[in-house]
Amino acid sequence: MADAIRDGEDRLPFDPEITADGPRVAFIGHIRSAWEMGTAPKNISSSRDTGEAARIELEPDYARGLKGLEVGRHIIVLYWMHEGQRDLIIQHPRHSDVPRGVFSIRSPRRPNPIAMSTVEITSLDIEAGVIGIDAIDCIDKTPLIDIKPWVSTIDMPVQQDK
Amino acid sequence: MADAIRDGEDRLPFDPEITADGPRVAFIGHIRSAWEMGTAPKNISSSRDTGEAARIELEPDYARGLKGLEVGRHIIVLYWMHEGQRDLIIQHPRHSDVPRGVFSIRSPRRPNPIAMSTVEITSLDIEAGVIGIDAIDCIDKTPLIDIKPWVSTIDMPVQQDK
Repeated sequence: MADAIRDGEDRLPFDPEITADGPRVAFIGHIRSAWEMGTAPKNISSSRDTGEAARIELEPDYARGLKGLEVGRHIIVLYWMHEGQRDLIIQHPRHSDVPRGVFSIRSPRRPNPIAMSTVEITSLDIEAGVIGIDAIDCIDKTPLIDIKPWVSTIDMPVQQDK
Repeated sequence: MADAIRDGEDRLPFDPEITADGPRVAFIGHIRSAWEMGTAPKNISSSRDTGEAARIELEPDYARGLKGLEVGRHIIVLYWMHEGQRDLIIQHPRHSDVPRGVFSIRSPRRPNPIAMSTVEITSLDIEAGVIGIDAIDCIDKTPLIDIKPWVSTIDMPVQQDK
């Protein structure tokens, strides 16, 4: 986990990969993509620009949990970026002038390395537990941890009357 | 975990709470809310309607990870619904005519009981690791697992040209 760090970056005094004592995540399937380490696009938007589709493959026992989804619906896909270090609390992204706290950026390197993207269902085989999606930004075989329907009243910013 | 289940609901042949063998999540803080078990609103939208604000309290070591956030920004808060059963693969929500797969609904009872809401930062004390937010739908002291900035190009559905 002790990768070189960039100027201004800083680590936690411990590595959550070793010290985390919360419940274990269940890997419920995998994401199949065209990307490998080094070729993965930097985010879902640039992935979409490539035109490369992707696929979600659920473990057989979880497949019927897809009942109720439909082609054309948007879903939020949550995946575990298992190759990333978890202790980099201050990071210096290439697009930023200054180092940033991990909770102000979308880096996959975070205390709980959960990444998420909102994608469109392009095909659906509930029995096989396979969902076609329009794009994804992670490498092939990244572990899947959740799928949620996108809901505007939960997932969109609300302008408050104050 | 063996709560009574409603008509048409069904369980996995195993309980992920016991069988999950993925990495452990790190609880990086807690959410402080006005809600207890039984009084929590059914979602962030109905929580917002109550006018009750909420607060996120980070564990001290994680506080500087907030650097770069600002009052008025929207964040996605991810929290672990630790009271929920994890094996209910088919559920019958009260609002639905028919039982639904867990991945087609936003129930907090899921194989990985991660809930998420998009909220507005109303106050921010980075040194103390405390964020005021406009609303939340979970009970007081729910464990926090991540905070991400809301980004339209990642978190909004995109209409595809086909």
